[in-house]
Amino acid sequence: MANVLRSSSDGQAMEQVGLRDLNEPLIDHSEGQLFLNEAFKIIVEEVLCKGTDVKQKVCEWKEPEELARLLDLELRATGEPQHKLLERVKDVAKYSIKTSHPHFFNQQYGGVDYHALAGRFLTETLNTNLFTYEVAPVFVLMETAVLRGLRQLVGWTEGDGIFCPGGSTSNMFAMNLARYRLFPEVKSRGLWGLPQLTVFTSSESHYSVKKGAAYLGIGTDNVIVVKVDDGGCMIPEDLDEKITLAKSQGTVPFLVSCTSGTTVQGAFDPLDRIADVCEKHKLWMHVDAAWGGSVLFSKQHRHLMKGVDRANSVGWNPHKMLVAGLQCSALLLQDTTNLLKQCHSANASYLFQQDKFYDVNLDVGDKSVQCSRKVDCLKLWLMWKAVGSAGLEERVDKAFIHVRYLVEQMKKREGFQLLREPEFVNVCFWFIPPSMRGKEGHAIYQERLAKVAPVIKERMMKQGTMMVGYQPLGNKVNFFRVIVFSPLLCKKDMDFFLDEIERLGNDL
Amino acid sequence: MANVLRSSSDGQAMEQVGLRDLNEPLIDHSEGQLFLNEAFKIIVEEVLCKGTDVKQKVCEWKEPEELARLLDLELRATGEPQHKLLERVKDVAKYSIKTSHPHFFNQQYGGVDYHALAGRFLTETLNTNLFTYEVAPVFVLMETAVLRGLRQLVGWTEGDGIFCPGGSTSNMFAMNLARYRLFPEVKSRGLWGLPQLTVFTSSESHYSVKKGAAYLGIGTDNVIVVKVDDGGCMIPEDLDEKITLAKSQGTVPFLVSCTSGTTVQGAFDPLDRIADVCEKHKLWMHVDAAWGGSVLFSKQHRHLMKGVDRANSVGWNPHKMLVAGLQCSALLLQDTTNLLKQCHSANASYLFQQDKFYDVNLDVGDKSVQCSRKVDCLKLWLMWKAVGSAGLEERVDKAFIHVRYLVEQMKKREGFQLLREPEFVNVCFWFIPPSMRGKEGHAIYQERLAKVAPVIKERMMKQGTMMVGYQPLGNKVNFFRVIVFSPLLCKKDMDFFLDEIERLGNDL
Repeated sequence: MANVLRSSSDGQAMEQVGLRDLNEPLIDHSEGQLFLNEAFKIIVEEVLCKGTDVKQKVCEWKEPEELARLLDLELRATGEPQHKLLERVKDVAKYSIKTSHPHFFNQQYGGVDYHALAGRFLTETLNTNLFTYEVAPVFVLMETAVLRGLRQLVGWTEGDGIFCPGGSTSNMFAMNLARYRLFPEVKSRGLWGLPQLTVFTSSESHYSVKKGAAYLGIGTDNVIVVKVDDGGCMIPEDLDEKITLAKSQGTVPFLVSCTSGTTVQGAFDPLDRIADVCEKHKLWMHVDAAWGGSVLFSKQHRHLMKGVDRANSVGWNPHKMLVAGLQCSALLLQDTTNLLKQCHSANASYLFQQDKFYDVNLDVGDKSVQCSRKVDCLKLWLMWKAVGSAGLEERVDKAFIHVRYLVEQMKKREGFQLLREPEFVNVCFWFIPPSMRGKEGHAIYQERLAKVAPVIKERMMKQGTMMVGYQPLGNKVNFFRVIVFSPLLCKKDMDFFLDEIERLGNDL
Repeated sequence: MANVLRSSSDGQAMEQVGLRDLNEPLIDHSEGQLFLNEAFKIIVEEVLCKGTDVKQKVCEWKEPEELARLLDLELRATGEPQHKLLERVKDVAKYSIKTSHPHFFNQQYGGVDYHALAGRFLTETLNTNLFTYEVAPVFVLMETAVLRGLRQLVGWTEGDGIFCPGGSTSNMFAMNLARYRLFPEVKSRGLWGLPQLTVFTSSESHYSVKKGAAYLGIGTDNVIVVKVDDGGCMIPEDLDEKITLAKSQGTVPFLVSCTSGTTVQGAFDPLDRIADVCEKHKLWMHVDAAWGGSVLFSKQHRHLMKGVDRANSVGWNPHKMLVAGLQCSALLLQDTTNLLKQCHSANASYLFQQDKFYDVNLDVGDKSVQCSRKVDCLKLWLMWKAVGSAGLEERVDKAFIHVRYLVEQMKKREGFQLLREPEFVNVCFWFIPPSMRGKEGHAIYQERLAKVAPVIKERMMKQGTMMVGYQPLGNKVNFFRVIVFSPLLCKKDMDFFLDEIERLGNDL
């Protein structure tokens, strides 16, 4: 029909063709479901079977030009047959990174949980928006239940919260809430009538604090960087001093953004002592626990976040350590005064009608600055139902045990030099190739060391055997950060990791 | 093992149990894939077969208390057996709204496209983050290709862009870019040193413009509302006057946010004439085409956006009219100076290392204020490959033909009163029950009319036969807005719609 419509130069004829065709939908369900079935089989085979098989590659490295050619990305006027499209599904899988592979140690979202994945397929198929009870009755209630469950682990019996598109957004919401609580007029008048505001966070906190300050009109210069100790934890005394100094300079401190589980070192700021400082100065205390929050499931390790219940807000990404799948980021609030909605709402009359036949407090969408908002609670809920809090605790505990094993093995080998004993599941280390051992005092030692990790990384990517990240930090030159938390890991993967670093770097 | 770990009070014993267990992962792939297979079958049966069957309900209405009880949402310490979890998958599907059902006319995301859905399943399973070429090689290139394809339809051979978590975020990014272009120092210093900024948008634009102004520290009072004509289109002369007035009051206008396809009426602002005003005053012109952008695929209807190529930025949600699935929101930019990255970047050294072995311009993540960012391009790419631009054009054209059919049928029936002839695929109308017909002059006519739509809505929801939205607008009392665009629709669904409104409202 498309061609008929387009080739016709006669309006009348087009109309008739159009009208006749009105009796048939444009999509055929049987054909569509057949395609979906075939695609599902490919996805299971390529991503879940091969993609988690340690005998297969983590990545199939291609230079960008070659990959673009292989994928034939260009979009054209005419469609393609089903078999060709299934090949495309296979190609996308083939050339994508296998983030569930046991040898993907690159970022904080490795691994797969099948219950969560089933929840994600269901979410995608139901395709709804989490803004009103009318269109998302199950998910409005479910999100509330999941947020309640997470808040209980923080130690709050009451409160509020929302799922956000990532931890950066959670941090920005906290910033906006803290600002609004202090100066509610900011919502209508903007920042112009307000004194200069300042935010406090550690030098090892996530970059989203600065991004948030820029985005919210506060400016990165007004993010005051607090010193950390050797382990990367914020020093409360320095925080206190810097707040006092900022006040003396005429600015108004309004937010301390602490971190539980920093990105690189996995450090936990001392929340209890920071809470004392926040109380003293009456500041909003936010905890960015995007990465570390999951320790709250563990009776053995939750002490790392002692004092979190004294915070005003906590950001926590179950898509990281709990493997709920991207994205699953909760912002939790102790507030019971409906601050979130007051701060973000616009009361659009076409969506949040007040004359509905049910309790419009269930229309939670206006708590966000988003309008369309994905359902991010179902995957976590189904996984939590599947393994229980005890199962999630076991995952956290086992990750710590794995780390201990890895660290012990590193100590037994020459050439692995830890930055420090890990507090969490980030293990930061330099690999010292044999040619450099014992030469720490040499003039160009640091310069040479800085080049080791990038070369090993390039080799592992090009061979596809493994992925792990590296970075410099302060005056420390490039070192590896291996993250050990996937529930798919076992001892032999850690042994492989160490062997592979040696294999790739021994000749450097 | 979890119980052993927890019940042990002997550190040594725990260690041994832990170590022995290190040889096995916590997740069994065979069991997991079996569950996923069973869940997939339920999803297809409940959501895609029953959920699109006109003989089945669109929704299974339950009061919140009853629904919470039925779903048993509470999260517990222990997990549940697989058969129980599969029941839960079924329950979630059962009580959720069937947004792909042909009788779901409630929001701009009805319908399903099977190729896009396959792309979404693949996206979920690959579970990666669109921030570096390293972890998302396929998707970095694919996003670039899809954005290029969309930009070409706007009329730009060059430019930039990014997928955002929803159209609201696209609008906010445009606001931040416009501000940054004029005052780059805002990123570091915040708004304090700057003159008061003003934004211009029509009274029928999306509420995210105000939300954005509040969030970005500009304030809702600094959003100047421009008048619209009867059809809901911005009046360029009023825009020009209001900009001049705002300047004379000492504020600095910096952004005009136009709309192509307003939420309620589906109106298209006259872009060419607005572009003249923007050029005259040197303002950033943003087009919120979240809803209407898809007309650009249609040779017959793209005139509605004539002048869009003169804009600085365009927001466009293929998850709406093109049925790509939530969320798929592109922000397109004419800029070729890397403004997006300059404005949003934080240059985190752990993620965006400069000593990588490939071109780090491929690490696109720093263009966003997000860190974790979902892959939203694959679903659109696969659908586009499947049906081609011609197939997408056909969908758009057919939606317009459907609307014409619906409007003609409305005119043939008593009791359906259009607000006006629709310009797009939103059809806004009052249903006048027989008891009210011919009584327009009566004192309480408007008051009674305002109550008709909510009652019909309540009845359709409780019977589950259909969903359509209503709202007031300005001095117009509650009217229905039916949206006709799903590729699953055919003539008999429109006939059903009209019959059903009559059936539910004839006794009022």
